[in-house]
Amino acid sequence: MSGAVNFKECGSVLVTGASRGLGLQIVESLASGGFSPGKIVATARNPERAQKLQELASKHSNIHVIALDVVSQESIEKAAAEVTQLLPEHGLNCLINNAGISVSADFNTAFLPLLRQAASRGGAGGSRSMSIQRAAVINISSVLGSLELNWKAETFNKWYPYKASKCALNMVSRCMALDLEADGILCMAIHPGWVRTDMGGCEAPLSPEESISSTLSVIGGLTEKDHGSFLDYTGEVLPW
Amino acid sequence: MSGAVNFKECGSVLVTGASRGLGLQIVESLASGGFSPGKIVATARNPERAQKLQELASKHSNIHVIALDVVSQESIEKAAAEVTQLLPEHGLNCLINNAGISVSADFNTAFLPLLRQAASRGGAGGSRSMSIQRAAVINISSVLGSLELNWKAETFNKWYPYKASKCALNMVSRCMALDLEADGILCMAIHPGWVRTDMGGCEAPLSPEESISSTLSVIGGLTEKDHGSFLDYTGEVLPW
Repeated sequence: MSGAVNFKECGSVLVTGASRGLGLQIVESLASGGFSPGKIVATARNPERAQKLQELASKHSNIHVIALDVVSQESIEKAAAEVTQLLPEHGLNCLINNAGISVSADFNTAFLPLLRQAASRGGAGGSRSMSIQRAAVINISSVLGSLELNWKAETFNKWYPYKASKCALNMVSRCMALDLEADGILCMAIHPGWVRTDMGGCEAPLSPEESISSTLSVIGGLTEKDHGSFLDYTGEVLPW
Repeated sequence: MSGAVNFKECGSVLVTGASRGLGLQIVESLASGGFSPGKIVATARNPERAQKLQELASKHSNIHVIALDVVSQESIEKAAAEVTQLLPEHGLNCLINNAGISVSADFNTAFLPLLRQAASRGGAGGSRSMSIQRAAVINISSVLGSLELNWKAETFNKWYPYKASKCALNMVSRCMALDLEADGILCMAIHPGWVRTDMGGCEAPLSPEESISSTLSVIGGLTEKDHGSFLDYTGEVLPW
């Protein structure tokens, strides 16, 4: 995949868990790349402690940092109200679920009106095709959530909870795809690769920049055919 | 599948969530069929309230009812100690995870020594082949946990938590299969069909008897090739 993907025509992106790791890198790559969306909403549980994110936001006027604890219904509703104020007319084009998945159903219920609003306006030039320029939900999953491939991933033998939660996230992604298809909202799950983050450790082959540059490239190029899919950061289809 | 499967050479079976629904039917079919295991350990959160199970146990001396709340670590440990006393020499041949899955990892840790004990003794005639006559973990899953098939199951569109939990259970099943293969413990997930239970509702096509008779037939006939698999109650392989 080349880096020539156009996020410019994607008016707004919301990234959860943006205080560090891949979430932070997504915000940074979106803000500093040649394809910056109009508004990048970066959420973190404790924005006041998210120093790197705050520094980034002070340099890029299109980054909006808001508090969101994805396991608190109160916090979710407060964040949804703030985001609604921030995106009064255009709605939300692209939701990137990068933080915990424990309440993804509630979470998406909260942001759904904004995604529906964006979808009803259509994509670039009013297009009715599915794309992040219209409306999309991207779930940051992992190849470790693949039932088929698990068979051979002995290195990660004991990661039961991680694997089970990513597998469940893939199912949520499929359920959402089924549910939101009629609204024209593209839903899919993506594996960003094994990355040198706090979670991935220092042996991982990819730097955060490499992973996210490639991942965003794939996300930027998503079309109708990718609705309900499970792709990796190079755009390859992964088996369930 | 015929009903001519031999559970007799399977010394012990433990069924969780046996107070009603499919769990109760499993115990009843095992106890009253022509292929009753030596010991059937039936667990329920509140055995004193599990009237039907108690009635069944009063008719069949090989049914042992014990208390087990699968979301309480204390209860799990107490149950494991009781089961250990009940199966002092032979270990546990077949664990049927039918109750909630929230703590399946802990749950299996507790019963693992008994399964290992049974596996080390071998199956019928000391056989080292995988089977329920040697040692097995059976996870009661659902076709609604299939990522592939979800695409078309619009009837159950809104069952996010159920689908996600069964999908996660399938992953736990795969992880266990990888983990316990060296011990010779067969692990798999099975879909018992859509059944007229409290959960399945009255429109479901299968009676509990039909479902469980067929499901037990499949379980009784499991071999090495079914290790890590996802089958339905007729023995057909389901896609992840």
